[in-house]
Amino acid sequence: MTPIDDLRRILVVGAGLIGTSVGLALSGRGFAVALDDPDDSRVMLAGRLGAGRPWQSEPVDLVVIATPPAAVAPTVDRLAAALPGAVFTDVASVKAAVQRDVDATGQAARFVGGHPLAGRERSGAAAARADLFVGRPWVLTPSAASDPRALALARVGVEACGAVVVEMSAADHDDAVAAISHVPQLVASALAAALADAADGALGLAGSGLRDTIRIAGSDPQLWTAIVGANGAPVAAGLQVVAARLAEVAHALAADPATGADAVQRLIADGRRGRARLPGKHSGLPVPYVAVPVIVPDVPGELARLLGAAGDADINVEDLSVEHSPGRPLGVVELLVAPERAEALRAALTARGWSLAG
Amino acid sequence: MTPIDDLRRILVVGAGLIGTSVGLALSGRGFAVALDDPDDSRVMLAGRLGAGRPWQSEPVDLVVIATPPAAVAPTVDRLAAALPGAVFTDVASVKAAVQRDVDATGQAARFVGGHPLAGRERSGAAAARADLFVGRPWVLTPSAASDPRALALARVGVEACGAVVVEMSAADHDDAVAAISHVPQLVASALAAALADAADGALGLAGSGLRDTIRIAGSDPQLWTAIVGANGAPVAAGLQVVAARLAEVAHALAADPATGADAVQRLIADGRRGRARLPGKHSGLPVPYVAVPVIVPDVPGELARLLGAAGDADINVEDLSVEHSPGRPLGVVELLVAPERAEALRAALTARGWSLAG
Repeated sequence: MTPIDDLRRILVVGAGLIGTSVGLALSGRGFAVALDDPDDSRVMLAGRLGAGRPWQSEPVDLVVIATPPAAVAPTVDRLAAALPGAVFTDVASVKAAVQRDVDATGQAARFVGGHPLAGRERSGAAAARADLFVGRPWVLTPSAASDPRALALARVGVEACGAVVVEMSAADHDDAVAAISHVPQLVASALAAALADAADGALGLAGSGLRDTIRIAGSDPQLWTAIVGANGAPVAAGLQVVAARLAEVAHALAADPATGADAVQRLIADGRRGRARLPGKHSGLPVPYVAVPVIVPDVPGELARLLGAAGDADINVEDLSVEHSPGRPLGVVELLVAPERAEALRAALTARGWSLAG
Repeated sequence: MTPIDDLRRILVVGAGLIGTSVGLALSGRGFAVALDDPDDSRVMLAGRLGAGRPWQSEPVDLVVIATPPAAVAPTVDRLAAALPGAVFTDVASVKAAVQRDVDATGQAARFVGGHPLAGRERSGAAAARADLFVGRPWVLTPSAASDPRALALARVGVEACGAVVVEMSAADHDDAVAAISHVPQLVASALAAALADAADGALGLAGSGLRDTIRIAGSDPQLWTAIVGANGAPVAAGLQVVAARLAEVAHALAADPATGADAVQRLIADGRRGRARLPGKHSGLPVPYVAVPVIVPDVPGELARLLGAAGDADINVEDLSVEHSPGRPLGVVELLVAPERAEALRAALTARGWSLAG
């Protein structure tokens, strides 16, 4: 046990999606995790899921602050004296503004900013998962004032969550997330907002392409207002680039067909090039499940009967998705199972009279 | 057998993904399907897959023209005299321009435009599937000149493919696909194109949110140039709306934090409202389901037991999602039910010993 990376006790402040997932991951690795949240019921739920015990003011080595950005520096300030041996990190998705606030508390030496690039559209402890961070990047943004011990302990905690540490400056981080997260969020929202003007009949024609494109438009307004508000300049610049490109193509299409076709072709080609820059797919799940699609009448009890058939065959269904057919009494349910169980599931369902959809 | 819907013999012109899938679906339903394509090898492949026999100039009742948009009217023109008893439909993804071209052939009475809202990222006969259209909308756009028999036969054919017929005017169709397909395509491309300027380190941080948002940016430039080029005015108007909104938010963010926060909050909220307009299941207006989260042990049979409890209480579970987490022995399952059934479901589950997660 070296003095620099002696991490045993962690306090997670904020029992939402990220905090509870951190608690689940670190508890699962044998760390002693304490939970703190102004809302006791959140601590209770996170505790029941296995994320840790309620904090009783006992000393800890590392405090992971999983609160909204504006609460990070006040939390450092509140706990600094009570936890003299602890270092602090946070999970806020903007880093320069948080760092400025922490600098003002006089505790910058004990703080290393952090941002796990993991999340879900859903929030709250109920959506937490121990493997949320597995294989995902987790940015750490040590400042010039950060003590090496703070960085070392934060690193140990992050790596114990299964994440991949990426070190960069707070400013580089904020530019990066503007490009890959904040601007995409607002563009998806603007596209979805435009659907408000579409005819009812039009929306019934939408398919998975549109659904994927605006999936993130379901995000929480309060959360995103805080995030983007703390990263205004890079986001504004990025939005302006996209807006100008769209206006240019609109103008060309309105001008004449040849000009329009040329602008569209260049836009789609440039988009393909931009998309190709994304590195290979990261997966949050270590196991690729196999989907077994089954045709299921859309009446009470049928899903239970289907899953009962899987259970009778002792096959654990890891996940499922229900694809309802517009205007039809039948749906297709995809049962996701471990690859080595797929054939057994197909056989068991067929033997019990279910129709496979593919 | 009424004279109006006497559909027995179908000619599919164009043995690509859509044409071959139509042939597979209709052959499977017992219709006599003939295939025609300038490329004999495509007819051979589609025939081997079971989509139909090569057309030998025999009479047919319905011709399904599954060619690029510009070839639809010439095909009608070419076959009108040779097939005096036949009516025509097509599958092109823009309808007003095709209709204008068909009107010019003098065969408008025998033509009803069509557009199946189905497809795959792969193209060609080899990617065809008999169930490609099952449960998907298929727009038919009868013109003022269309003979009722043309509409009736097209309807029978479309419904035999398992699709859901949606009737609207060609102009309404083109406005609809601009909103739900063409504008989203170009917005996704513009967002992806902007990634060309991002730092390498930034792209490594990208997650599934960005990946989903720009998935369709991988589309084929030639295909989309043709599609959007034939629907220029509605697409230009839609792009302008999105561009103006993004420029407005960029301007607000650059102005000052309070103005920026306000603009962002309104944008995200509007985006959520727009996204919520997408129907979730069946046809017609979207029904907002309520999620009831339940804590479920991650062992075989528990999901079935849970759904059995809902079924015993005569509550139809419309959808569900499983928060499966390998790192913990419990999962959270969200049961989605009609709002007026949520309370009954909560009560029924609690009475049977299940723990609700929220």
